[in-house]
Amino acid sequence: MDYQVITPEGVAYLKSVTSPERVFYGEEIEYDYHHDEMPDFGTHAPDVVVQVISTDEVSKVLRYAYEHMIPVTPRGAGTGLSGGAVPIYGGIVLSTEKMNKILEWDLDNMTVVVEPGVLVMELANAAIEKGVFYPPEPGEKTASIGGNVMTNAGGMKAVGYGVTRNYVVAMECVLPDGSVMQFGSNVAKNTSGYDIKDLIIGSEGTLCIATKLRMRVVPQPKVSYTLLVPYSSLESCVGTVPKFINSDLNPTAIEYMPKSLLDDAAYYLNKIMPHKTADSYLILMFDGVTAEDVERRCDEAAAICLANGAEDVFLCNTDERKEAVWSVRGAALEALKASTTDMDECDIVVPRNKIADFSRFADQKMAEYGIRISIQGHAGDGNMHIQLMRDDMDKQLFEERCPKLMADLYAKAKVMDGQVSGEHGIGHARVEALENYMGPRMIALFKAIKAAFDDKNIMNPGKVIR
Amino acid sequence: MDYQVITPEGVAYLKSVTSPERVFYGEEIEYDYHHDEMPDFGTHAPDVVVQVISTDEVSKVLRYAYEHMIPVTPRGAGTGLSGGAVPIYGGIVLSTEKMNKILEWDLDNMTVVVEPGVLVMELANAAIEKGVFYPPEPGEKTASIGGNVMTNAGGMKAVGYGVTRNYVVAMECVLPDGSVMQFGSNVAKNTSGYDIKDLIIGSEGTLCIATKLRMRVVPQPKVSYTLLVPYSSLESCVGTVPKFINSDLNPTAIEYMPKSLLDDAAYYLNKIMPHKTADSYLILMFDGVTAEDVERRCDEAAAICLANGAEDVFLCNTDERKEAVWSVRGAALEALKASTTDMDECDIVVPRNKIADFSRFADQKMAEYGIRISIQGHAGDGNMHIQLMRDDMDKQLFEERCPKLMADLYAKAKVMDGQVSGEHGIGHARVEALENYMGPRMIALFKAIKAAFDDKNIMNPGKVIR
Repeated sequence: MDYQVITPEGVAYLKSVTSPERVFYGEEIEYDYHHDEMPDFGTHAPDVVVQVISTDEVSKVLRYAYEHMIPVTPRGAGTGLSGGAVPIYGGIVLSTEKMNKILEWDLDNMTVVVEPGVLVMELANAAIEKGVFYPPEPGEKTASIGGNVMTNAGGMKAVGYGVTRNYVVAMECVLPDGSVMQFGSNVAKNTSGYDIKDLIIGSEGTLCIATKLRMRVVPQPKVSYTLLVPYSSLESCVGTVPKFINSDLNPTAIEYMPKSLLDDAAYYLNKIMPHKTADSYLILMFDGVTAEDVERRCDEAAAICLANGAEDVFLCNTDERKEAVWSVRGAALEALKASTTDMDECDIVVPRNKIADFSRFADQKMAEYGIRISIQGHAGDGNMHIQLMRDDMDKQLFEERCPKLMADLYAKAKVMDGQVSGEHGIGHARVEALENYMGPRMIALFKAIKAAFDDKNIMNPGKVIR
Repeated sequence: MDYQVITPEGVAYLKSVTSPERVFYGEEIEYDYHHDEMPDFGTHAPDVVVQVISTDEVSKVLRYAYEHMIPVTPRGAGTGLSGGAVPIYGGIVLSTEKMNKILEWDLDNMTVVVEPGVLVMELANAAIEKGVFYPPEPGEKTASIGGNVMTNAGGMKAVGYGVTRNYVVAMECVLPDGSVMQFGSNVAKNTSGYDIKDLIIGSEGTLCIATKLRMRVVPQPKVSYTLLVPYSSLESCVGTVPKFINSDLNPTAIEYMPKSLLDDAAYYLNKIMPHKTADSYLILMFDGVTAEDVERRCDEAAAICLANGAEDVFLCNTDERKEAVWSVRGAALEALKASTTDMDECDIVVPRNKIADFSRFADQKMAEYGIRISIQGHAGDGNMHIQLMRDDMDKQLFEERCPKLMADLYAKAKVMDGQVSGEHGIGHARVEALENYMGPRMIALFKAIKAAFDDKNIMNPGKVIR
């Protein structure tokens, strides 16, 4: 790739089509723009950062980059976990952080138009104020909607409500050559040419940049209860999950945590849990319209748990209790980070009924490599968040063993008909894992699709594919 | 395009890699393979028809076609309405009608693997036998699952359950060069490279051929009630729809029919409707787990209808009554066909709250062109099935005026942020409409995506794009 380095004239041009106070060059660039939330995967300085505020600015910046062969790395809130926003070839970081307006509510069609830099928690709160509900709830609430769309983030409530993809109705995007495009529209069904919208969702900024997003919202649930369910073994804990999936109880969330992590997270937050001596915990959420309906489903769920080896079932129907349980679940990653020196992580997804098998395999590997592994996460959709902790292992040894251990985990996922990533994406950290998983014909197809959008390979190069 | 005509040696080769009794050449080919359900859009004879029965056969046939530059038109049950299965460049019609096995149920993950030639009604019935439910219910129950996936068919229950896209978990597909690929897998979340699965859904057989489909099923609803709601005006009838969409009543289906069509369809089926003197009818379906819950939602829905101008609300909670209403709705297209000489049709989709505006526009155009227009369909998702009837108009005059009238309707849809087709697709009948709607940059992008899969343009050429 013959990328060009941006010249002072280029910087001046970018300032002229945006604004001098939103263009940062060389030493002016803050270190935050060198990395995302996993700097362990590598950091890199951009040559210039442009904070855009309009579609027109995005178009002009991209057009310039296209004509001058300058790589462009889009960046939302920088909360990614795969290095997707790291400008590994330098060039321009195009930040959408200031495109953060909620533009239009259309409650007749239950949609809302937002700019990509709006944060997930901002949209969620604005929806509540409007009397509606934006369901996707990834662990990181300060992620941007644009970033969530580009990684198709899921989060806890994906079991009941689906992933971010299910909430993207239409997108305005800018292609690498500066063309402004509309993908999808404010309609509920569509078979009018290729579904480019869904191709872009999850493409990690490698095909184009989203400048407006029309998202779907749904009616607010009126009642929400949580069950905390202790089990004496992981097998019976995650073994209960398929019973819910093929019941008509429609759980909103099904999470699981091993005791050690529950302890760590409760300690980290200084929270007291209703129960803490079991081997594994299932955490269930049920939402609904009436208390009677939610209670009936909780009762049936409790009976299912107890019939499948649960030690007990704790109903959390007060705000305080629910908050205790979900804040502890939400603090898992932070608690793990605080418990060790260095960390590697992935978010392999397997069929829901394979979680226990996969966990046992990981236990064997933990013993084999001498590396502590934590697995927790979204039991209801088979998406595990897996952390490898260095603790007091020699750093060099850890860095040697980690990739081998990861490769073993990815290979096992493939055998189980799983996938490399459920929601964190490939970024630059998992490109090799994806290549190994997909094989050469699929990677060739990926490259051909990439070239259909980005013939000069300037859009987030080195991510997803290389 | 320099397509080659298949030679007798080629036919012999196709027989050798499939079976002589499943290859038909020249005069042996039945007329059914020249057209789909809308022969008015044009018919064309293939040079050869191959009824494949395995992925390996599909791969070998495509590989041969690829090497010899022979166009291939995939065909399921031939029930399309846009000419998607018409071999307009001759060549091979690759029929999946004999790939009609249900291969594997996985109720732990609530999925089922089927061959593409399984009919929608066959999968729906098999699901019921397994105690589960396959929700997509397009009007044409004898369509194949492969065809439904390739047009992303929706049907009546899309309001509550979503469209076919929402039920495709994974696909095995054969690329034009014969490569066998796996898109997606048996997991609930996935951000592992480009989402090719969703790009293929709705691509009308122009990118590859699906040979296995892993579809999602859901728990069976236990109770289902229907409401028939007469209104004195279309405005108040379809004007009620947004009230349901932003309520928490979660309707399964919201259909509407004008009186004239209800009369025609009831007469056609010799059914007696509970009411037949109103201007327009809304038909609502509510599914649920308990009778109490469904009754509560029906009561609230009835109150909403009455507060928004309904003349009355008829509850259909017996199988006989429900069957009467839904069979009449289902017979609309057949009744219209029986009522006229020739017909043109489209299935424009607009935002849900724009249906009345669009219908009034169509009324004006009906007067202007002197062509009878029927509009009915999926009020809950804004997808209208629009028929233009020749009746006793001069055939040549009808054929002159129809394209102009259609162009006006498509242009109006575009202004309203609607789309060319909600579920019938583009085929070859609506290629020009799509071009006009999308503009040259989008069509160029479509062509680049097409080329990424099909560099020799042998897969269903002339469909979606030309």
